[in-house]
Amino acid sequence: MSNGINARDVAKLAGVSQSSVSRVFFGGATVSEKTRKKVLAAAEELGYVPNEFARSLITNKTRLIGLVMKGVHNPFYPQVLKEFTTHFKELGYSILFVHTNHDEIQKEDIEMLLHYNVAGVIITDATLSLKVIAEFKNNKIPVVLFNRKVEEQNFFSVGTDNLVASRQIAEYLIKKGCQDMVYISGVRNTSTSIEREKGFSEILIKYNVPYQVYHSDYSYDGGYKTAKMIVQNGDVPGAFFVANDIMALGVLDALREQSIEVPSETKVIGFDNIEMAAWPIYNLTTWEQPISQMAEETVKYIISEIEEYTDRIGNIEINGELIERKTT
Amino acid sequence: MSNGINARDVAKLAGVSQSSVSRVFFGGATVSEKTRKKVLAAAEELGYVPNEFARSLITNKTRLIGLVMKGVHNPFYPQVLKEFTTHFKELGYSILFVHTNHDEIQKEDIEMLLHYNVAGVIITDATLSLKVIAEFKNNKIPVVLFNRKVEEQNFFSVGTDNLVASRQIAEYLIKKGCQDMVYISGVRNTSTSIEREKGFSEILIKYNVPYQVYHSDYSYDGGYKTAKMIVQNGDVPGAFFVANDIMALGVLDALREQSIEVPSETKVIGFDNIEMAAWPIYNLTTWEQPISQMAEETVKYIISEIEEYTDRIGNIEINGELIERKTT
Repeated sequence: MSNGINARDVAKLAGVSQSSVSRVFFGGATVSEKTRKKVLAAAEELGYVPNEFARSLITNKTRLIGLVMKGVHNPFYPQVLKEFTTHFKELGYSILFVHTNHDEIQKEDIEMLLHYNVAGVIITDATLSLKVIAEFKNNKIPVVLFNRKVEEQNFFSVGTDNLVASRQIAEYLIKKGCQDMVYISGVRNTSTSIEREKGFSEILIKYNVPYQVYHSDYSYDGGYKTAKMIVQNGDVPGAFFVANDIMALGVLDALREQSIEVPSETKVIGFDNIEMAAWPIYNLTTWEQPISQMAEETVKYIISEIEEYTDRIGNIEINGELIERKTT
Repeated sequence: MSNGINARDVAKLAGVSQSSVSRVFFGGATVSEKTRKKVLAAAEELGYVPNEFARSLITNKTRLIGLVMKGVHNPFYPQVLKEFTTHFKELGYSILFVHTNHDEIQKEDIEMLLHYNVAGVIITDATLSLKVIAEFKNNKIPVVLFNRKVEEQNFFSVGTDNLVASRQIAEYLIKKGCQDMVYISGVRNTSTSIEREKGFSEILIKYNVPYQVYHSDYSYDGGYKTAKMIVQNGDVPGAFFVANDIMALGVLDALREQSIEVPSETKVIGFDNIEMAAWPIYNLTTWEQPISQMAEETVKYIISEIEEYTDRIGNIEINGELIERKTT
């Protein structure tokens, strides 16, 4: 309690036992109407507000949102963190931050989130097992997969439309006259990486444009090393579509090191539109993810499920847009 | 409760009232030894564990650490966030993340932290008023200023030794033969920026090396614009000491745009050693902040103050080291 007033003070002023105060605020056994009134009057006079923990015992709800994140080294995610913190703060909710080093969210993290009785959970770049999903569902805790989705459509996800995006990217590069292309994927089993490959290859196959796929890991180093390996073989493709911006920056640096001119000798296009993509040294053409709108949809879903738990499932996909810069 | 068992189930099995269960776990009025034993036996049989909120009512402590951060766009801070989340997780603590858009931590953020009865608070790049400090002290909540300190030494801070660092940087640049220099500061009233200027200018004055100070804001754009403005006047100094890496990257890009060769025409040195400083396109000489050790000292202090609150004040400064790359 920030003002230092506790249940003992309230009990003293109300002339009742401390246990009566506990019962009024924390629930449990019945308490007479007379006692309840005395306690509430004393609490008001003293400015006593049971803290969040006491409140949660009454309402069985907290105002904590668990946010699970892996890749804080990718500037996309700190931006996401900022969006959610800002949105939820306006609504009186706070962020319980969980960082995981693993692709799949760990048992101890789930236990912690349940332990704090979080009102909702947002999972960004980590994956969930079906068992974990069930644990949240059993506890009626709404979960949103942000910027990820899973095959088993039994929960709610919010992202950008990766198929639309990657098809448009392929068409754009074909129009630019690129004859053969490379797709550099992120972490192999992620929905984002798989869908971006799918849309891209669909169009290239349709137009009979040859392409190769290389698997990387969504990191700068991964992009750098993959591009270096490709061009060191002497093959410079007509264009690189890289599954996220931070890898694309690595690709650009590898090309620069090998004195391969962009966009004249090859073209590079990323995904996300992180701040650094606009830096003059990179000037990266990319696909802008509508982070703010994606965050808004996520918040809207979580708040509505907190108000009334319906276990609604679905997948909201918001269209992004091509940001044309100097690398294409 | 993750297993769905609640106080009502325990009461039923123990054959006591729900209020007795509450009293055993949540404290308050006395409960007979016989009842207590029955309740505890039933709780054990059912695997009932009062959640964190109930626990906090018993112990009057939580295992939440408030982490207040402003500049998530600067990759230094996501790295700090990751360090703290990892360290505290090992100790069973979780991170309540607070993002502030303001230099000074806001009243609503303080209230939120008090409301959740956090066990400790870490403040990175935001400032605190004396009033706020008093609120935490009144509640016996240990606070650490991380990578910041204040003139009024009435609390605990952990950082790198900025004076030692900036003196060594000045000596290093003088040895490299730089004849006139520029210091680009970060946000003007921050201790980091002030101390880095102080140590740097001390040495330059001692050796009679002329220098100019420009004030910027710890952002890439700030560094970029400041450097552009300086060199567009036709003056290219012998070296730039830039108060953090992300600004230094902006400086390097501005120099590149003006076709000013680094390190032959001018030299650039940053501060922090963020991941991007090592990217081949930048290859920035910088001062490495010992983030891991700084985080360890912070955690050590907070845990010891949680165990026994002594309101110990002080300032721990850990030496970093010069990382020499291609910009000097």
